[in-house]
Amino acid sequence: MGIEGNDWVLMKTARAPSNIAVIKYWGKRDENLILPINSSISVTLDYLFATTTVAVSPSFTSDRLWLNGKEVSMESKRYKNCLQQIRSRATDVVDEKTGLVVKKESWKDLYVHVASKNNFPTAAGLASSAAGFACLVYALAHLMGAKESYEGEFSTIARLGSGSACRSLYGGFVKWNMGKEDDGSDSIATQIVKKDHWKDLVIIIAVVSSRQKETSSTAGMQTSVKTSPLLQHRAQSVVPKRMVEMEEAIMKRDFATFAKLTCADSNQFHATCLDTSPPIFYMNDTSRRLIGLVEKWNASEGTPQAAYTFDAGPNAVLFAPDDKVARSLLQRILYLFPPASDADISRYVVGDQSIMELAGIKTIDDIEALPTPSEWSGIDIPRTKGELGYLICSRPGQGAIVLEDSAALLDDATGFPGQ
Amino acid sequence: MGIEGNDWVLMKTARAPSNIAVIKYWGKRDENLILPINSSISVTLDYLFATTTVAVSPSFTSDRLWLNGKEVSMESKRYKNCLQQIRSRATDVVDEKTGLVVKKESWKDLYVHVASKNNFPTAAGLASSAAGFACLVYALAHLMGAKESYEGEFSTIARLGSGSACRSLYGGFVKWNMGKEDDGSDSIATQIVKKDHWKDLVIIIAVVSSRQKETSSTAGMQTSVKTSPLLQHRAQSVVPKRMVEMEEAIMKRDFATFAKLTCADSNQFHATCLDTSPPIFYMNDTSRRLIGLVEKWNASEGTPQAAYTFDAGPNAVLFAPDDKVARSLLQRILYLFPPASDADISRYVVGDQSIMELAGIKTIDDIEALPTPSEWSGIDIPRTKGELGYLICSRPGQGAIVLEDSAALLDDATGFPGQ
Repeated sequence: MGIEGNDWVLMKTARAPSNIAVIKYWGKRDENLILPINSSISVTLDYLFATTTVAVSPSFTSDRLWLNGKEVSMESKRYKNCLQQIRSRATDVVDEKTGLVVKKESWKDLYVHVASKNNFPTAAGLASSAAGFACLVYALAHLMGAKESYEGEFSTIARLGSGSACRSLYGGFVKWNMGKEDDGSDSIATQIVKKDHWKDLVIIIAVVSSRQKETSSTAGMQTSVKTSPLLQHRAQSVVPKRMVEMEEAIMKRDFATFAKLTCADSNQFHATCLDTSPPIFYMNDTSRRLIGLVEKWNASEGTPQAAYTFDAGPNAVLFAPDDKVARSLLQRILYLFPPASDADISRYVVGDQSIMELAGIKTIDDIEALPTPSEWSGIDIPRTKGELGYLICSRPGQGAIVLEDSAALLDDATGFPGQ
Repeated sequence: MGIEGNDWVLMKTARAPSNIAVIKYWGKRDENLILPINSSISVTLDYLFATTTVAVSPSFTSDRLWLNGKEVSMESKRYKNCLQQIRSRATDVVDEKTGLVVKKESWKDLYVHVASKNNFPTAAGLASSAAGFACLVYALAHLMGAKESYEGEFSTIARLGSGSACRSLYGGFVKWNMGKEDDGSDSIATQIVKKDHWKDLVIIIAVVSSRQKETSSTAGMQTSVKTSPLLQHRAQSVVPKRMVEMEEAIMKRDFATFAKLTCADSNQFHATCLDTSPPIFYMNDTSRRLIGLVEKWNASEGTPQAAYTFDAGPNAVLFAPDDKVARSLLQRILYLFPPASDADISRYVVGDQSIMELAGIKTIDDIEALPTPSEWSGIDIPRTKGELGYLICSRPGQGAIVLEDSAALLDDATGFPGQ
């Protein structure tokens, strides 16, 4: 295709992971720039990610976006801000394959097509927007040859799309510093440790079946900032100390401290939601039974075996320090929360095969053959079928990466989603 | 019966009400004297009360206690403290009927028999210990001719039995000042207004059927004081302001402010329970649905119609400003939480007849004839049968009173529970 013609399409495809906060972000000090009232720390999730293809072509007549195959408007401020910020940092780009050159000044005249999909149900409330915006910014930056003028600058752009998206650019454990500047230039995400630093850590996500109607986190944190007398105290007096302690626990792979802080901070976040007027409830009785499972087990062992954290929804994200404990945790969950009898185990437990195999469960019947509670400490909880939709097994994952063109979600000739 | 003989029994019978806090007490600064970390305000409940008979006789060989017909030990520090404090304030007493004289100095040599019962299920977690200890102290004081050396002194003695018992001595709305003294002498309850000050106020208690295993409030508040970073902030920085606002709202019968503060303080109390490690959950999904009923209704009307508060359990205490709103509140509760189909309406809605009649419900079938939700604002909540055990209708009530001997729970000849 000729550089003068209109018949060329240039595209890049990237993948960005989801992340789960262990020190929670709740409350903005600036709604437009998405600047938080406290810093936060997250672990990047393996297996849960967004894949995004971004394309430009002189033949495009507007910016367009397809999410999980369905076209949605790109008019929202959040998309416009991310796109505008990357465009303003675009450079001369030469396409190795075709020799096509896009000059720095021409990017502003080129519309983009974006196609993005998650490999996990968006409905499940597993930070799909964080993975999505991180992936969009990362793909756009590579397409347009944008460079960071300081480390973490791209994270400030992803942050404009969705606050927690800034943490999804990096792998392992990531810190989002709240920053002090009014322009948000220092409200950036930085990596604490790479994914391999704590590769034994096992993460199991228990997706709760019945979802109560939820308050969006954007609306929820606005109301909390306005009405909760406890939230400001948390942000100013509790979180700063926990940030230091959590970072140290992660550096040392000190699971006992990590578990204590993770559970306490999840509970405090939900406490500030309850302290909001009208109160916000994200956890339900199933969530509480999962907390009970972990707390009773930990209490009976005298030292934390597992940890839990809940975002703005009833789903639990559970942590185990190694395969041995993960095996026991997975078995306890399967025993106490068996799937509806007609369920297929391979659809009930998904994700990292190596973790799924730990439990030694190949069929639903195997669950009944598990050790009886009497052999397990602290597990006096009634069994209930079908309370969980499914379980996702994961480990700390890597950050955003560029994928081969073969992974593209847009047709390389037309720049539109393939039929 | 002769004063020298051993065959006389002297007794007094009293009645004391239960109370529900609208500014919550949670956390002690002194476990032995039961001194709170913040002040609190309660409304005294009509219809829910304890009846207690206390008796002395030279024939008694030990202090003995019968609770709801069953003998229990009086060895606990809480009983001993109350008994010892009243004995130390005993005076010469002349029994009008018999002319029997008990000299001040002889009380210490006389053992007491105590029989007490509640007119509501103890299991329902409706502050039975508050009513019980207030009643014990009040009956003992009248039996032994004890006098207060300053107003509210008896409330400091009831407080030694159960913190919230100090508020059950008085009717209407009652304030428990946390006090500053180490000996607790200024940690007393005082009446804000008499029951008739706000006699239009309607109180409906929704007793939740299924009870999750609960943490006792004594153990719960100990753990909260030890582990919740938010509780101290609540006690020191939030409650003092709310005490002033709540007292003013009560004086003015300002229901909108009363409702806002009552709901917010109940939620903040449960928020500090959730901020406790391990977290304490007193409310369940039924509790949350009752909150949803009130919050959605209030939001849709733009101004508070009703209010809710929850103590250390899932039961809701609901408030309406007058009969008109109470009628609608009761109808909404009955519509959304109908009894199990075999239930008898007269057992499902108990207490103050005048309130029960407001709803115009005479049989279970009448519930189906209620206005459809479309005629009600903010009531998009699914109906579920049998989630509530029963409803108790009440109004602000009077404080502790002495009853006729005919109400005695002990035989006046033997001083033992009658067969």
